[in-house]
Amino acid sequence: MIGARTENGHRMNPNELEYRTLLREDLDAARALMVSACRDIPHPIREPVEALILGGGKRLRPALVLLSSRLYGADPQDTLLSAASVELLHTATLIHDDLIDRAAVRRGVETINARWAPTASVLAGDIVFALAAKLIARTGNTALVQRFAETLETICTGELQQMFGRNGNLPSVDTYYRRIFAKTASLFSLCMASGPILAGASEQETEQASQFGRLLGEAFQITDDVLDLLGAPQQLGKPIGSDLQQGLVTLPVLLYTQTVGDEALVQHALHYPEDAGAMSALLDELQMHGAGELAMAHARERAAAAEKLLHGYPDSPHRRALEEISRFAVARAY
Amino acid sequence: MIGARTENGHRMNPNELEYRTLLREDLDAARALMVSACRDIPHPIREPVEALILGGGKRLRPALVLLSSRLYGADPQDTLLSAASVELLHTATLIHDDLIDRAAVRRGVETINARWAPTASVLAGDIVFALAAKLIARTGNTALVQRFAETLETICTGELQQMFGRNGNLPSVDTYYRRIFAKTASLFSLCMASGPILAGASEQETEQASQFGRLLGEAFQITDDVLDLLGAPQQLGKPIGSDLQQGLVTLPVLLYTQTVGDEALVQHALHYPEDAGAMSALLDELQMHGAGELAMAHARERAAAAEKLLHGYPDSPHRRALEEISRFAVARAY
Repeated sequence: MIGARTENGHRMNPNELEYRTLLREDLDAARALMVSACRDIPHPIREPVEALILGGGKRLRPALVLLSSRLYGADPQDTLLSAASVELLHTATLIHDDLIDRAAVRRGVETINARWAPTASVLAGDIVFALAAKLIARTGNTALVQRFAETLETICTGELQQMFGRNGNLPSVDTYYRRIFAKTASLFSLCMASGPILAGASEQETEQASQFGRLLGEAFQITDDVLDLLGAPQQLGKPIGSDLQQGLVTLPVLLYTQTVGDEALVQHALHYPEDAGAMSALLDELQMHGAGELAMAHARERAAAAEKLLHGYPDSPHRRALEEISRFAVARAY
Repeated sequence: MIGARTENGHRMNPNELEYRTLLREDLDAARALMVSACRDIPHPIREPVEALILGGGKRLRPALVLLSSRLYGADPQDTLLSAASVELLHTATLIHDDLIDRAAVRRGVETINARWAPTASVLAGDIVFALAAKLIARTGNTALVQRFAETLETICTGELQQMFGRNGNLPSVDTYYRRIFAKTASLFSLCMASGPILAGASEQETEQASQFGRLLGEAFQITDDVLDLLGAPQQLGKPIGSDLQQGLVTLPVLLYTQTVGDEALVQHALHYPEDAGAMSALLDELQMHGAGELAMAHARERAAAAEKLLHGYPDSPHRRALEEISRFAVARAY
């Protein structure tokens, strides 16, 4: 899965976030652009693709494109094209991920792979990649096209590395961070880089915006990983510990084994995911030793560093919206 | 399958075609660019992708990009980037097609899907799309990027339509032409359009080059479809009638049923592909009634129209190479 789980709000209700009011019109315009881009996808595949687009909860990625563009004064039409393109790129990766993960439901809709042969998912994802490329090319900005392509490469390379990287050892914390950069933070980073690239800002400014996106994406993904292990399953819509059950070792588990933890317990749970008793014992252990808290310290550190980067911009509703999103990234966990 | 079978030479030996001598250095440079673009694909997937690139027989698509660029005087570096990009785009579609078709071998190499889980093929194809996009973006020409994206959309949309378009009736000749445009001619058309687009030629000139590519691609694909039904299996490396066995009705069959033919015979072969006797009887019927000849008349008409379009260009080794390729497209069948 690629960054699919960064959008489940806890406590802080995502529907009440300021940016959604601030950007409502533009978010709707970006969505209309996406739906219109998809109009030539052959029936019956157009319908589930549209449902994916319309069901995209917080629309955080297009919101980041819009906010970063406002900070740098990018052209509004190019901004909308980029916002729509980034969400289509994300949608294409979701379609291929659902095929890879054999997911049955996404955003409340039956997945393409659940209803049709794998061919349909492969081709539908490819078409949505093509549509994303068409939109971003319409900005006339090849530096941005290049960055889009690099991000797609990063995302898929990260997944391939994850597929071939399993060797029986637990990953290092560095490997974990490389994985969540590929999975989530690289796309957040692209969203934030769009504004300065479109506005022709300096490389240094692009780097700063991009760094904000990276830190924010990491904070989001760590929080997601904590929620997966210790969170509220009724809100996440999936069972607690689903990452471990899929053989995925995340930061709370790594920090637990590095400090007080018993690696044998983790290895057992990884090798025998069907042993519900062992899994439940491990989850209790993680809870007892505050593994979630250890990981959330990492997430909060990143969210704070992201927010600090924003101090370099003059105060504005758009800067404040980004500050709010930085706080929301980690506030979801409590 | 997407245009995978346009490159099996008969009679006219592709190794002796002029363009291969004329373009040797540039074709090698384009290939080096592709291999270098692939260097970050994670092991063990890089190796089969490289083998696909190095095994690409006639390199007809990059050759068309190079020839069209010479005709219009496009920048040599941008031309190499485009030639490499078009072949990577083609390679990505082959990787996804082999997964879809469950092909075991391609260009003499075991396919990715034959050795690893579907995940590997999905991601490898996605990465190669990303690499193609990175290269084409390096030309700085967003009109060309747009055209690449549109072609990818056309190819995949055509495949989806084919998947969902089967309704028990034979397709019309129009539907057949739409299918082979998507499958083969759209990419040939993109190759030929690259030169004028890079050179900033007029829309009319781009349209003319593109039309040459389309006609050439159609001539190639019709010839391939004839060879599939009536050709020399030892040279094609696949059994005669494999399209029909996969439920694919091609031009010779359509023209046969429209003239002397018995549609019931065709329908029976389509519905009972395992009935080897019926299949063999149908192939004999097609042979007896000259179905291949009927279809080759279409192919020759297209190749002649393509060659005629070349009369608009001043005589040059590059124009002559394109003339030779037009003749080669249909000469393979005899």
